[in-house]
Amino acid sequence: MRTPERSVELTQVTEWEDGRVRSLQDSLAAEEPLEIRIGGVPITVTMRTPGHDIELSAGFLLTEGIIQSPDQIASLRTMTPENGVRSNIVEVELKDSDFDFEDLQRNFFAASSCGICGKASINAIRVRGLRQPDTSFRLDPEVLCRLPETLLSEQAVFSRTGGLHAAALFDASGQLLALREDIGRHNAVDKIAGWALMQKKLPLTRHVLLVSGRGGFEIVQKALAAGIPILASVSAPSSLAVQLARELGLTLVGFLRGRRFVVYAGAFRCIP
Amino acid sequence: MRTPERSVELTQVTEWEDGRVRSLQDSLAAEEPLEIRIGGVPITVTMRTPGHDIELSAGFLLTEGIIQSPDQIASLRTMTPENGVRSNIVEVELKDSDFDFEDLQRNFFAASSCGICGKASINAIRVRGLRQPDTSFRLDPEVLCRLPETLLSEQAVFSRTGGLHAAALFDASGQLLALREDIGRHNAVDKIAGWALMQKKLPLTRHVLLVSGRGGFEIVQKALAAGIPILASVSAPSSLAVQLARELGLTLVGFLRGRRFVVYAGAFRCIP
Repeated sequence: MRTPERSVELTQVTEWEDGRVRSLQDSLAAEEPLEIRIGGVPITVTMRTPGHDIELSAGFLLTEGIIQSPDQIASLRTMTPENGVRSNIVEVELKDSDFDFEDLQRNFFAASSCGICGKASINAIRVRGLRQPDTSFRLDPEVLCRLPETLLSEQAVFSRTGGLHAAALFDASGQLLALREDIGRHNAVDKIAGWALMQKKLPLTRHVLLVSGRGGFEIVQKALAAGIPILASVSAPSSLAVQLARELGLTLVGFLRGRRFVVYAGAFRCIP
Repeated sequence: MRTPERSVELTQVTEWEDGRVRSLQDSLAAEEPLEIRIGGVPITVTMRTPGHDIELSAGFLLTEGIIQSPDQIASLRTMTPENGVRSNIVEVELKDSDFDFEDLQRNFFAASSCGICGKASINAIRVRGLRQPDTSFRLDPEVLCRLPETLLSEQAVFSRTGGLHAAALFDASGQLLALREDIGRHNAVDKIAGWALMQKKLPLTRHVLLVSGRGGFEIVQKALAAGIPILASVSAPSSLAVQLARELGLTLVGFLRGRRFVVYAGAFRCIP
């Protein structure tokens, strides 16, 4: 469950405090580009915190609608580093050799700055094939309130660098199943989705996803792609996140702090 | 200086507090896709907070290295809304009719999830042509310490929705020149860069940029593209942000809170 050391880098910095200057060592959240290739063709470059690269890549393929099942993956591997340099490339081979790269490249050519990776037109920003998650799942609000504390106590890196987002997957009893951190909030969610995909746990019909940052549109989309019925955040959602959650029947919880939370969509799953 | 009302949307939500349930109205940070077209060709879709769309588009063109000067723009306009629907498209015409769309599309085809929009390979993620900003500029640390307070007192939306990032441009005396907010931190910076471009104030050689969120790689890149010598943040920078700032000679300040800050690169500009 511990995040590998590669997610933190040490550096020498200068501190100014009330006119006093001193040099000290500081921890930085590592940020490096990861290139994902399918059949040798570069599909995306994402800035991510190194670690769990295979899960991140698998999750990206799932939540961007490129695959729906682990059975579609022939192989998924980190390229062997050259000259001892860290590898920042993941090579994917899909079983369907008729995979349409031109279509994918068309979809991806118009890059987005954040989260809605590369959909070429506004009409195409929603990942195709999203469905309403399980409507029979219920979560006790008392269990919901305990999740942020569990997340905080398990976070390995955040307290040291102050720069990482976390995504954590829980079951209905509030037990933590997986926790991933990343400098990009969407990458932390992709790591969770990829973990579930590789573990053949999809769809995540009886689960809650808690994210440390804001619940934006792209996070709602990724949660839906993994079949998650409840998405919770300690912060505020955006208008488009609320709109998509309402349209597709996802339970969206915000401002989950202490013994209070606000439900923006699908209140039936967590308010008796 | 006030952010227009379109940046906030009201919605009905359900609050749970200590077992008590009530319905109330909440403010949401608006998030809508903006499509930027050059000569009718869609170049990017970004999720942004509506408002200052022209500045955002101009800033995007600048900080992504597509243009270097406002003189290269023939026209920049929001498409007329159809059926009273809000417009989410900005049309750009460039003077250079030989503009290479194929080259641009190649660069952008491999979309990124956050900030390094669509560079197709790891080697290409750095915007070309970035230079070291002005080395003669100095900023009094006492002035630096006052900037976050000025930013907070001017922020129109943040306190209501809890969901917006801010970017603010100051001069050497600590006077606020421009403040922009957005659900995407990089968009807030692009709005500032676009404002400066349209006002013919580039390069911003005697200025400080303060951002409310983390100082990541893409923010460093955008600050450099606008010629800004000092980038400050109330939070932690990433490892790659520090690396790029050191390589290109940008002053990078983090954890700017109260009467304390940490300098990660270029301390000579703000520590006497």
